[in-house]
Amino acid sequence: MPDERALDDLVEAVRGTARREIMPRFRRLSPGAIATKSGPHDLVTEADLAAEAALSRDIARILPQAAVIGEERVARDPAALDELAEAELAVIVDPIDGTANFAAGLALFGLIVAVVARGETVFGLLYDPVMDDWVVARRGAGAWLEGAGRGASRLSTGGTSRMQGSTGLVPLNALGPERRAPVMARFEAAGQVQDLRCSCHDYRLLATGEADFMVSVALNPWDHAAGQLVVQEAGGWSTVGGDRPYSPLLRQGCMVAACTQRLGAEVSRVYFPDRPRLAHV
Amino acid sequence: MPDERALDDLVEAVRGTARREIMPRFRRLSPGAIATKSGPHDLVTEADLAAEAALSRDIARILPQAAVIGEERVARDPAALDELAEAELAVIVDPIDGTANFAAGLALFGLIVAVVARGETVFGLLYDPVMDDWVVARRGAGAWLEGAGRGASRLSTGGTSRMQGSTGLVPLNALGPERRAPVMARFEAAGQVQDLRCSCHDYRLLATGEADFMVSVALNPWDHAAGQLVVQEAGGWSTVGGDRPYSPLLRQGCMVAACTQRLGAEVSRVYFPDRPRLAHV
Repeated sequence: MPDERALDDLVEAVRGTARREIMPRFRRLSPGAIATKSGPHDLVTEADLAAEAALSRDIARILPQAAVIGEERVARDPAALDELAEAELAVIVDPIDGTANFAAGLALFGLIVAVVARGETVFGLLYDPVMDDWVVARRGAGAWLEGAGRGASRLSTGGTSRMQGSTGLVPLNALGPERRAPVMARFEAAGQVQDLRCSCHDYRLLATGEADFMVSVALNPWDHAAGQLVVQEAGGWSTVGGDRPYSPLLRQGCMVAACTQRLGAEVSRVYFPDRPRLAHV
Repeated sequence: MPDERALDDLVEAVRGTARREIMPRFRRLSPGAIATKSGPHDLVTEADLAAEAALSRDIARILPQAAVIGEERVARDPAALDELAEAELAVIVDPIDGTANFAAGLALFGLIVAVVARGETVFGLLYDPVMDDWVVARRGAGAWLEGAGRGASRLSTGGTSRMQGSTGLVPLNALGPERRAPVMARFEAAGQVQDLRCSCHDYRLLATGEADFMVSVALNPWDHAAGQLVVQEAGGWSTVGGDRPYSPLLRQGCMVAACTQRLGAEVSRVYFPDRPRLAHV
């Protein structure tokens, strides 16, 4: 576990990267500054690339012993992800989570950093570049909302125990067009269903009690490692596939997280209908 | 039509209201500062009330001859809406469009102002308090993105003519839980379907070419009058119910807007299946 000083420096490095590399480009990207990766909605912008490069340099200075695993580095070199299981200490970076929103001019994106020690997430940061505030968790020390000009507030998830009338975060667009209607039918009991297209704000809403549950279709550690620690430290519950706890080393599976274990079990029965037994409940 | 000076003063009044009454409360509301109106997701906060009161006072100074019709005033006194048809000049105000997002801490809300002269919208403003920038249209003079520290950029809608692979804005949550799945099935051809829960940003995305079409389930003039003028001035097309053009005096009906008339006609056939003939196409 890195010391407090290093973690504070990490937060300041994130703030500086957002101020210098991300916000000056928001709503000012030229069409040539956006490229596609795996498909028409999997985007990378010059802001993602510049932010990851700048922050990776800062992390190498703050935690020289750590492997730095960034989303854009892994896009270029998938084998880089293997370092996560092998390294004593690794820092996972998503320079802009919610790139499609960022590129469209929607202020719903974030910068995510997780610190993983011997395969276990020990620090998670969900940073909002637009408002310069952040949700942060250190393992065993709770989840907190902090920011420029505000005190720290301890966070706890809501207390909803039933899907009826709850607010759920469901990645409709990541599911693919033909699965949108059937998945909506499964979540008909929920009062509200939102697709933020941004894990950073999904996890923030769950940690602040503004959403009751979330589900995912992929397990990229840059999207989930920090948020999973935050939600756990805020009192929430999660499962991968209905029968495993989350780990940043998992690469495949669908995830359910909820403010309470009882709601999480109900959501899992709906989302994983073929696996009614939840082995680790 | 008010003169240019008055319209510039109106923009500055909106900016001041956002700076003084809205942004200091964002992510800082106490639970007691949020109340419900018609149902659990129809919210009003102390920020909505304070912003509408402050801006209404400014408008009475800038355009003393105008009726001022604010969303929160109409919520208290529905008959206030009648002034829109009767007044020579009216200013419609939505102090915070996207209140549910605002209250949840999502930076996806706006302040909307429309100026209506003898029943016709002549000026529309879609203001983003978070970034202090705005999309504005004067009738006959195009739609523009302007903001602090940036030049004015003329906007035009995209050129998509087919629903296949397009990006649509569909108010899933306003439809009600039981209609989410069937409506998703109708829009299966769309590549992306988003529910921003914010008309202000719906219309901004359509005007900037970041979304291809939008549909609505209600016609409150504070949600639509400004955005309809913006989209028209940016080259887009719209219909109410598949057989009428939009007017700020309409109170009932579902609306379709699209970047091109051809896409709008296709969306209308899907959204209004009982009205295949589009009388004003």
